[in-house]
Amino acid sequence: MPESSGSSETLLEIGEREILNRLKKYMDDGQIDNDTALIKNCKKDLIINTDLMVEKVHFSSRTMTPEDIGWKAITSNFSDLASSGLDKVLSVTIGLIAPPSTSWSWVNRLYKGMTNALEVYGGKLIGGDISKGNEKVISITAIGSQGPLDLHRSHAIPGDCLVTSGPHGLSRLGLALLLEDKVLETKHVSDELKAIAIESHQHPSAPIKALKSLINCKPTKIPWRAAGTDSSDGLLEAIKSICISSNCKAIIRTNNLPTHKDWPKGNHWDKWCLNGGEDYELVISLPLEWANEWIKIMPLSKIIGDVKQGSPEILWENGKEIDSKNYLDFEHFQNK
Amino acid sequence: MPESSGSSETLLEIGEREILNRLKKYMDDGQIDNDTALIKNCKKDLIINTDLMVEKVHFSSRTMTPEDIGWKAITSNFSDLASSGLDKVLSVTIGLIAPPSTSWSWVNRLYKGMTNALEVYGGKLIGGDISKGNEKVISITAIGSQGPLDLHRSHAIPGDCLVTSGPHGLSRLGLALLLEDKVLETKHVSDELKAIAIESHQHPSAPIKALKSLINCKPTKIPWRAAGTDSSDGLLEAIKSICISSNCKAIIRTNNLPTHKDWPKGNHWDKWCLNGGEDYELVISLPLEWANEWIKIMPLSKIIGDVKQGSPEILWENGKEIDSKNYLDFEHFQNK
Repeated sequence: MPESSGSSETLLEIGEREILNRLKKYMDDGQIDNDTALIKNCKKDLIINTDLMVEKVHFSSRTMTPEDIGWKAITSNFSDLASSGLDKVLSVTIGLIAPPSTSWSWVNRLYKGMTNALEVYGGKLIGGDISKGNEKVISITAIGSQGPLDLHRSHAIPGDCLVTSGPHGLSRLGLALLLEDKVLETKHVSDELKAIAIESHQHPSAPIKALKSLINCKPTKIPWRAAGTDSSDGLLEAIKSICISSNCKAIIRTNNLPTHKDWPKGNHWDKWCLNGGEDYELVISLPLEWANEWIKIMPLSKIIGDVKQGSPEILWENGKEIDSKNYLDFEHFQNK
Repeated sequence: MPESSGSSETLLEIGEREILNRLKKYMDDGQIDNDTALIKNCKKDLIINTDLMVEKVHFSSRTMTPEDIGWKAITSNFSDLASSGLDKVLSVTIGLIAPPSTSWSWVNRLYKGMTNALEVYGGKLIGGDISKGNEKVISITAIGSQGPLDLHRSHAIPGDCLVTSGPHGLSRLGLALLLEDKVLETKHVSDELKAIAIESHQHPSAPIKALKSLINCKPTKIPWRAAGTDSSDGLLEAIKSICISSNCKAIIRTNNLPTHKDWPKGNHWDKWCLNGGEDYELVISLPLEWANEWIKIMPLSKIIGDVKQGSPEILWENGKEIDSKNYLDFEHFQNK
């Protein structure tokens, strides 16, 4: 049957076997024709990440197309691989749960968005599972090979500085714009900022280029040691996770928050920068000399603070503790 | 806090960070402390499988304890690895979605069931993700190394015979017993059969031993070639998937259905045997000489049919087609 004739068909109407049959075009030598998928000739250490995206928790049809949702499911996962020092994406499996009333068109567009991201970032879709359920869920497992820099949250040491690969708060602002949040009525937001914010929310990039440039600019006399994570759960959460894993404290430079040049001033805006979430930038703890090289070639990156000896906490330069709870905008097990 | 003091706490009360903290005891060098988990020194080809389990589709608190659900989530996934010729289970990631009102005790008991299975079958829990959602979902990705026999659905050839590693319909009968299905009132079910059926439903085995014995008994002059799958979606579905992938037909021996010795006679019981689902036995297409060796050492295995040239279909010995739809008891996108 030509695809165009079936755009309003539901999953219930076409049935599991036909759904799997239609998904084959997105798969490479995959699990659909067998009970498992094969990953051949693995010779390096592998890194693996499993992420869940739940409708109304992580995505909504109100603000995202199915292609956006698919794209973001892949890039947010690859952001985790990048922040562990990825060399190359190898394979991806997708678990998809959807109500039987879901249209095939929605599923098809979701997979198009995912394969668009794979074309940009590499990796092959090799398998997964589908099931009916009451709410849509996308479970992604991605596997990549480990590169020369073993980025880990626990690798920070006192004396490091903290660098972000780009501005923060954009995705949260994008969401507010898409939802016509009343907060926005009090401040002028430039058209350029609006466009970038919405793009950041609907169609974020994985920080693969940032990682490659970090690796390429390492001064040769410095060893391959840096701590890192991504800011998918918010900038402060990222810094906090490095502090906890590395058992150190972070001092944040008050006047150097990593924001877009048009970013408005104010408490609310600081909050979105510090903990808006879904920014998918690298947050790296590394020696100043290496940091200086990186920010030279990455114009949007910024030194935002320093790592000091002490029990895990985050302080402003004036010594006042930053309680990330005050900035919390994103917690999976709490109601917003 | 001692664990016993918090058995009625909900996930909402303890929050995401504390949930992850408590799950650490089940993890080995895992994704909880970093953005990804590491799989070191992979030198063989790997096989990977992602499975979804959705509450009220794949499991229910009415018939299963949280430990049972965890155990079955792992063993059903490992059944797929076994039916691809697994050498050794390496790593497992778990995505868990649960309503915020779920008790920590439920989650803890689920993970206990999963780690019990890992202790029996091998493999380490290395990471995953948690999220809130309206219904419970378990997404499991398991990775193993490929052994000498590359079992694949597409490897059957005419002249093979079809062998199952054990009896079928037990899990479906177990479910009926647990739900006090009225169908059971018309037939006597022995106490032995009842006990095995309930065990098969709540605490199934992965067919790893059956695979090892299949590998060990291969006559040396026969090449490493056999087709296989597991009967997790029902015996007929398993045979059909081999026929479709290998482009051949299957002739089923009418009087040799693979049932327990006490299995009652009748249409309904044949249906449960042929397509009850969740049996997790191997269904193998292989040369008769090899099959004869296997059934010698696996007393519950049985030659159930033969593979012939022809377009994909399943026939009884009298030439009548078996329409698996007539036996369908298990389809993810249809309402039962």
